[in-house]
Amino acid sequence: MIYLDNAATTITDPEVIDVMATVMNNFFGNPSSLHEAGQDAKTIIEESRKTIAHIVNCEPKEIIFTSGGTEAINLIFYNIGLQPSIKHVITSPIEHPAVLYSLEQYGLAEKTEFLDILPNGTPDLDQLENMLSEMPGAFVALMHVNNECGSMLDVERAGAICKKYNALFFCDTVQAIGKTPVDLHGWNIDFAACSGHKFHGPRGIGFLYKHQKHHFVPQTVGGGQEGGLRSGTENTAAIAALCRALELADERMDETLQRMSEFNKMLVTKLTTGIPDIRFAGDMNNTLPHILSIAVRESDTNFLLTQQLSDHGFAVSSGSACHAGSKTSSLLHLMGMPGFFPLRVSFGKFTTTKEVELFGEILLKMLNE
Amino acid sequence: MIYLDNAATTITDPEVIDVMATVMNNFFGNPSSLHEAGQDAKTIIEESRKTIAHIVNCEPKEIIFTSGGTEAINLIFYNIGLQPSIKHVITSPIEHPAVLYSLEQYGLAEKTEFLDILPNGTPDLDQLENMLSEMPGAFVALMHVNNECGSMLDVERAGAICKKYNALFFCDTVQAIGKTPVDLHGWNIDFAACSGHKFHGPRGIGFLYKHQKHHFVPQTVGGGQEGGLRSGTENTAAIAALCRALELADERMDETLQRMSEFNKMLVTKLTTGIPDIRFAGDMNNTLPHILSIAVRESDTNFLLTQQLSDHGFAVSSGSACHAGSKTSSLLHLMGMPGFFPLRVSFGKFTTTKEVELFGEILLKMLNE
Repeated sequence: MIYLDNAATTITDPEVIDVMATVMNNFFGNPSSLHEAGQDAKTIIEESRKTIAHIVNCEPKEIIFTSGGTEAINLIFYNIGLQPSIKHVITSPIEHPAVLYSLEQYGLAEKTEFLDILPNGTPDLDQLENMLSEMPGAFVALMHVNNECGSMLDVERAGAICKKYNALFFCDTVQAIGKTPVDLHGWNIDFAACSGHKFHGPRGIGFLYKHQKHHFVPQTVGGGQEGGLRSGTENTAAIAALCRALELADERMDETLQRMSEFNKMLVTKLTTGIPDIRFAGDMNNTLPHILSIAVRESDTNFLLTQQLSDHGFAVSSGSACHAGSKTSSLLHLMGMPGFFPLRVSFGKFTTTKEVELFGEILLKMLNE
Repeated sequence: MIYLDNAATTITDPEVIDVMATVMNNFFGNPSSLHEAGQDAKTIIEESRKTIAHIVNCEPKEIIFTSGGTEAINLIFYNIGLQPSIKHVITSPIEHPAVLYSLEQYGLAEKTEFLDILPNGTPDLDQLENMLSEMPGAFVALMHVNNECGSMLDVERAGAICKKYNALFFCDTVQAIGKTPVDLHGWNIDFAACSGHKFHGPRGIGFLYKHQKHHFVPQTVGGGQEGGLRSGTENTAAIAALCRALELADERMDETLQRMSEFNKMLVTKLTTGIPDIRFAGDMNNTLPHILSIAVRESDTNFLLTQQLSDHGFAVSSGSACHAGSKTSSLLHLMGMPGFFPLRVSFGKFTTTKEVELFGEILLKMLNE
């Protein structure tokens, strides 16, 4: 199988699996236990926290480990929902379901305004500034990298606008961390989320970043781990493996970005040459090269493309895994491309040139049949 | 180090680690993806669900995978808190903090009655019957195996009483599953919880059992995994590893119980012979043999026992890891043993006769100094 669905999840790095197995073998103690086995495990967790904080530029105490990005996002919205001082929420219609459904879940739907989506697939930041000038102190929730088309928010500018109007800024960095530089403190981000399996790390682990000036209460209760915010015995091995995956990603980020760009351009060139009316969602200069959203004209045969590709041994998707099964994409519609639906191809560090070439050939053949 | 703190967490079985690594390597697809990689991962999860359901005697669809026992318990109490028809909650003061703190967290504290604790360390079931006769339809939350002293509830009788009075029965089976037979349907249990790392399985995975006649809503939202009840990309490898750990535990349950009993008796005999006023919490005929709670007379030197034992390379605890650091045990007080505090020794399948002997010798020496 040729795996080109790295935005849904990535192939776990064998080195990450080794870290996981080694820590499971050697540091099994409960980090809350006072004996040596427990304290050794605790040390692993705190060292991982420091390393991660350094990479995303925040303080170690601002990292709260969770079971993944969804839990982290829910914990943020749960707390925002409890704050009556927050009168307005500004977000966009292209956020992840964990964000969009949280608006309803935590009683925020009636306070929420949605930004327009520009043709490049990012929310309109001029409109954000206009809205915030009338709603200072709002809670702003915008994703860094869109999971469906890879469009990238100008996070630095969004953070500066939020700061200017005393808004709280949650940047959903789930698709960004480990793929493109993230500067939590430098960009005035108040809250962020991370999921290990998006960058060749382990499943079932992620973290919440919360600037230290904000006070949160827990959504779930128990042993009071993670500073009282996240009860449940800490997953030492997964935390260490997440840390290693992030280190590996960070060390080779420029090199990987370069390779992903080459794959992206190679495929765009091949398809553009072979199919006259092919389109791509988003502006190539403003998109994470790991994700290429091919806009395919809606037709009865094209709707079967992902299934046909799967039958030929290619794993791609028609959108996010969390929306799997739905036929049309609201994102392309919002980006001014009605009548098209997306074929999302997403590369990872284990993708090879040959795989991309093979995929281009088979897709060309299918679309020209 | 000699690890005798298996009630806090267990040494992960190397075979379980192998399953984890193998599945991470070979079945990394997102189970929500429609392509082969995703569907292969989904198959692993559904096969695991079937195997687990068979072992604990319930339907596969009644198993909802979570990040662990704490999350499962919170999801139960969250839903109970949302049901205005539940006018009363009956529980005991020796439940896990995830249960006790949930009463407050989900607005149930004012509706809650606590059962008395019998000298054998279990809640008074005669009193439960009396209470329920006046509060039919109550929600009853009682643990199967107590994490501090190993005392075992007569779950079958508790379930029968609950059924008689139309009460909802949540049995906290976190310390029981994988160590002693659990019959969810046979015992009229409405809700239960499981944590993988309590029986040599992986960390960061567990499940909620919910009888199919009950309808739950999710506490957190997102991609709608696990029948909508637990959003977040499924942790395929941890689910498969949890399943394998439970299979291994189940296959050798009688044998393991026998060995744990021998360790338990060996230590009791040694300490009773060597220390005239030693006591043990609970009734040996009514206690999971994996856990031995030695009641040590309170004194300035005895308070340092667990630390001194740790310095000598023995990992034991003075209660549950979730209560670590507190000096006295309310449990021993409730069991009619004021002036004592617990030294909890807990065995696992990797514990050896020699380790137990060594521990007995060093403890004898320390207590007689």
